[in-house]
Amino acid sequence: MLVSEIMDKDFIVVSPDQDLEEISILMEEKRKFTTPVVDDQKRLIGWITSLDVTRGFREGKKKVNDVMYAKDDIVHVHQNDPARLAVLNASQHKVVSIPVVDDDEVVVGVVRTFDIVKTLSSLYEIKVTKIFEAMEDELKGVSWDELMEASAIVTQRRTGKRVTAQDYEKRIKDATFGEAIWATGGLEKFFVGLIAIGELVIARKVAKARK
Amino acid sequence: MLVSEIMDKDFIVVSPDQDLEEISILMEEKRKFTTPVVDDQKRLIGWITSLDVTRGFREGKKKVNDVMYAKDDIVHVHQNDPARLAVLNASQHKVVSIPVVDDDEVVVGVVRTFDIVKTLSSLYEIKVTKIFEAMEDELKGVSWDELMEASAIVTQRRTGKRVTAQDYEKRIKDATFGEAIWATGGLEKFFVGLIAIGELVIARKVAKARK
Repeated sequence: MLVSEIMDKDFIVVSPDQDLEEISILMEEKRKFTTPVVDDQKRLIGWITSLDVTRGFREGKKKVNDVMYAKDDIVHVHQNDPARLAVLNASQHKVVSIPVVDDDEVVVGVVRTFDIVKTLSSLYEIKVTKIFEAMEDELKGVSWDELMEASAIVTQRRTGKRVTAQDYEKRIKDATFGEAIWATGGLEKFFVGLIAIGELVIARKVAKARK
Repeated sequence: MLVSEIMDKDFIVVSPDQDLEEISILMEEKRKFTTPVVDDQKRLIGWITSLDVTRGFREGKKKVNDVMYAKDDIVHVHQNDPARLAVLNASQHKVVSIPVVDDDEVVVGVVRTFDIVKTLSSLYEIKVTKIFEAMEDELKGVSWDELMEASAIVTQRRTGKRVTAQDYEKRIKDATFGEAIWATGGLEKFFVGLIAIGELVIARKVAKARK
């Protein structure tokens, strides 16, 4: 996934010679805490936040130029950068948004942390049953019921609590992968459980075939 | 994971009768775009953003009370809520932060979207090799080299491009689960590939044993 796929294209820009009062109205109306500052070619030259505007107001500053950050002092990404780069930047630099530029340094979007949260959650908020279904096609010989039975047995072994295949099915019916990860306590544990289930399914199939 | 585990405890609060000028300095110094408004018992009664402060300055307002949001108009979560609730709220309401309260409605933290991004990324930024290692323990009989060989064969079948076990190993050596998901194009595809690898490993073991 590229930065261009998760960026917000509905952004505002301001120029360095604009009045602070004028841009504060724009930022309030559009509910933007941060805004790229561009030159007359729409190229990124700086960055302004609503906290710079409040300081400017208090100190009697008049223009964007008086309070903005220079381009070198802020983080920006290219529209063709991997989206993960924007994610890492946001988390590392603790910023709420990052300007996105094209080859000519023209601002083409802004990546906002809540967009990242949305993308990251949706990436993992896939129903577990959908993953099971996709795996079922590949597993061919293994039925849904066999999967549920093996899963219940593995879960019972690990937690020590009695769980039937029906309990297990009910529990995961509407769960997403994200929920499963949070519930099992991390990816590694989830995968180890999955392998154990896979092994058990095969062992039970072999035992059945021998009967 | 609970909200209390991902919230920022280093937050500021303001009271409704404080001067806008005074709190704007505090917000700028602490780099906070948003801040809970509390009563004298530290209970949540409202919310103020730096955009409300700029508007207040422009309109000649003096006090927090003149520009703040009432509690009913904002999203808040309980410290014992599942962390996923804060994530869903942030993504749904497009907010940069959410106040966290205890049973007495006292503000005990603030969940910020970049903290969520950090948590979400670290949850999935586990090295693929670590997952393989965890699975190896469970798989017992299967060696790392067997896994790499099977993975290379499956990858080659799917992409049509020649890939050796060494190529494959090199490629995933430093990759994280998050990268793998973004690269394979989604969870379902990742899991289907994993099953195919598992089946191939077993088939090759059986073939070897027969020789």
